[in-house]
Amino acid sequence: MITTVRVRYAETDQMGVAYHANYLVWMEIARTELLRSSGLSYKEMEARGFMLPVSKVGVSYRSSARYDDEVEIESNCAKVMVAGLRIEYLVRRRETGELLAEGFTEHACVDSKAMRVTRLPDFAREAI
Amino acid sequence: MITTVRVRYAETDQMGVAYHANYLVWMEIARTELLRSSGLSYKEMEARGFMLPVSKVGVSYRSSARYDDEVEIESNCAKVMVAGLRIEYLVRRRETGELLAEGFTEHACVDSKAMRVTRLPDFAREAI
Amino acid sequence: MITTVRVRYAETDQMGVAYHANYLVWMEIARTELLRSSGLSYKEMEARGFMLPVSKVGVSYRSSARYDDEVEIESNCAKVMVAGLRIEYLVRRRETGELLAEGFTEHACVDSKAMRVTRLPDFAREAI
Amino acid sequence: MITTVRVRYAETDQMGVAYHANYLVWMEIARTELLRSSGLSYKEMEARGFMLPVSKVGVSYRSSARYDDEVEIESNCAKVMVAGLRIEYLVRRRETGELLAEGFTEHACVDSKAMRVTRLPDFAREAI
Repeated sequence: MITTVRVRYAETDQMGVAYHANYLVWMEIARTELLRSSGLSYKEMEARGFMLPVSKVGVSYRSSARYDDEVEIESNCAKVMVAGLRIEYLVRRRETGELLAEGFTEHACVDSKAMRVTRLPDFAREAI
Repeated sequence: MITTVRVRYAETDQMGVAYHANYLVWMEIARTELLRSSGLSYKEMEARGFMLPVSKVGVSYRSSARYDDEVEIESNCAKVMVAGLRIEYLVRRRETGELLAEGFTEHACVDSKAMRVTRLPDFAREAI
Repeated sequence: MITTVRVRYAETDQMGVAYHANYLVWMEIARTELLRSSGLSYKEMEARGFMLPVSKVGVSYRSSARYDDEVEIESNCAKVMVAGLRIEYLVRRRETGELLAEGFTEHACVDSKAMRVTRLPDFAREAI
Repeated sequence: MITTVRVRYAETDQMGVAYHANYLVWMEIARTELLRSSGLSYKEMEARGFMLPVSKVGVSYRSSARYDDEVEIESNCAKVMVAGLRIEYLVRRRETGELLAEGFTEHACVDSKAMRVTRLPDFAREAI
């Protein structure tokens, strides 16, 4: 699954490139679209009482995204665990295909009423 | 009431100055401290079932804040209305006193259960 | 000119709606696309040595955008001045057409070498 | 070195906690103060022609920071390399001492004129 974002002026910093924390936001957007494409929107998942907060994140930066660049985020569900999942990402400059970053996020499945970690529900497991 | 923030690298953009939308965030911080100094923290206000969403905002930018600058936000409750209030702000560079921006926010008082505009509660009215 | 953005999880706050300062970022995206559609990208304008920093902003909030909503920003160049311009915006929820906010930004034209306000160059004047 | 930030309303998301990408911003603030306390401000370092872009980041989230919480970030320079450095962080809720997250950042030293990786200059090496 590939999702495209365009770098916002608000996302640049005074080095003249996209501020590094924004890659986490782009990875979140890619994840949202990955879930949507599997037939299960994250919005719906929260509506059914489950959340997927980030428990771990890692990013290696290779090159810089610049203002107005189109950036492609390739996301892939790398692992489904009993009570969570791991998603991996490759971030590229669309025009050139150059790799900008690679990263991952791990998520716990949380029951939003009890506010505790719970088994990933079957409807999510099947969709993913 | 004067509140000080230091400009974060994350808040700069590629013009090499603080991105304009961050002034709204700084005004929110000043507002939070203004309420706290009046004995009524906004956190407590939300806990009691009232919210103060922004209904209107205006900012005039005079000069630029730069990375690592200390910025002073002077906030002042300009008007208390039946179901809301208006706060005005002056933003200055601490080192020089130079005026960077002036602005205002208007807030509706919202009952967070009914999700509708309501009379500003007496405990808030007295504090402010 | 209408530009569409989807509300990011990162853009929500604990009221469960899009944080008010993000409307300024969306207006910046709409402005970028408005310039691009006129044949003059803002990136190119900066490359030619001109910047359009925000000198004034105003927003009236009517209703709330929520996570994953598609939001349409209608932007319109309301006034071209000697050394700046004014753009006006209407922000709507795409699904329902409901008006979420209306606002404006005013911009000074700045020569990025001399770092001072200058006449809006002819190539920009013609495009806009 | 311990740096304290207060969680901004802008930093919360609709889960009612601080959005995970903000921990990277807090770590940047802690890093800025760590450098300042060593007698070398990062602002001065950029003025002398050196930048320290983030090349790698990792965060493990243990618990959630909430609006208006005071959060302490303990930062420690874990490793000085030929052309970069590694900083490690512990993030705690000030009131209770509870660990919220632990993380690290790695930085390349970049010559901002040549725009390439360079040896960490002696003045930085001595300060750190």
